[in-house]
Amino acid sequence: MERKQRLVRERIVQAADELFARKGFDNVSVSDIAAHADVGRTTFFRYFGDKQEVVFAKEQQMLDAIADTAHLGTAGAAATAAEAVEQLRPLVLDLCDRATTDPEAYLRHTELVELHPELRGRDAEKAQLVAVALGDVLIRRGTDELTAVFAAQIALACYQTARRMPGTAASLTDNTRAAFDRARDLGRDATDHPAGAK
Amino acid sequence: MERKQRLVRERIVQAADELFARKGFDNVSVSDIAAHADVGRTTFFRYFGDKQEVVFAKEQQMLDAIADTAHLGTAGAAATAAEAVEQLRPLVLDLCDRATTDPEAYLRHTELVELHPELRGRDAEKAQLVAVALGDVLIRRGTDELTAVFAAQIALACYQTARRMPGTAASLTDNTRAAFDRARDLGRDATDHPAGAK
Repeated sequence: MERKQRLVRERIVQAADELFARKGFDNVSVSDIAAHADVGRTTFFRYFGDKQEVVFAKEQQMLDAIADTAHLGTAGAAATAAEAVEQLRPLVLDLCDRATTDPEAYLRHTELVELHPELRGRDAEKAQLVAVALGDVLIRRGTDELTAVFAAQIALACYQTARRMPGTAASLTDNTRAAFDRARDLGRDATDHPAGAK
Repeated sequence: MERKQRLVRERIVQAADELFARKGFDNVSVSDIAAHADVGRTTFFRYFGDKQEVVFAKEQQMLDAIADTAHLGTAGAAATAAEAVEQLRPLVLDLCDRATTDPEAYLRHTELVELHPELRGRDAEKAQLVAVALGDVLIRRGTDELTAVFAAQIALACYQTARRMPGTAASLTDNTRAAFDRARDLGRDATDHPAGAK
């Protein structure tokens, strides 16, 4: 995206954030956001499909960031599911870092989503899109599709676990890393406690 | 739910299914569904929050079924994450069986969700509600919250992997079982291929 476009996009996001915080998500229209950002409605819709999308502007950037990663191509095909999950670990931890760069903005976002059922749906959908993007990275590296889809869902599960843990924005990355460790150790646990023994 | 209520609910779901198939989801209103089911709009909204909810009537039954499971209380607290995931395995496989009892209805549902972005969001949200319900089962059995949340997300990841595999309704349960096997074996893979070696 060109610099000017990035700035307009950023201005819309900031205008929306301000209005949501001041008047409440439900009481803000696309026209309000456009006016506050000093752009027309047409311009708004060039950047965002609807009001909800502005809330997930960061998620869209994350999806773009994941797609870019695939082109780096430092790693090859993963031979096992465990290796595939480990290939996704640094990508997901990087997403956690990006999501929490501004801790207050992260908490505002989390609260907003929690309070609005329609945003929870969009949030869950974006998370699945992240999983698809992560799976695609593995597939482009030559990993078979089943392993890639499975590993991406496990990676998403680690991230979702961390998001559901009580804790501040600062602990999101650490909690996600801990969940990846747990996923890696699943089979080791199972050796001590035979699966299905109960 | 009383028998009469169940029948009314069922009639609304069936009326909606017929209208969605005949006219397309977007061209059917709550009033259309109510009229076709021979109930008033007020009655419709006693059972469903909106038109989308009718599409996920089965998911709501699943959530109720999971909550019921917790009261059976045959298993105790899980000592490890692996054991917690294994405790959820039969529950999730049972959900898969229920979801695909009527294979054609399952495929119609899948297609409908895939074609409508707003339904994809609701679908992803329902999946997260299933994870919350699964985690609650473990917590009520005495498993610590972190392990419960993690295991529930891993169980959901197995289910989501299977849903994303090409295949008919008939293979959903088997594919989910295979994903649970893969999750159980993650640590074993890792022993052969040291994590982070690549």
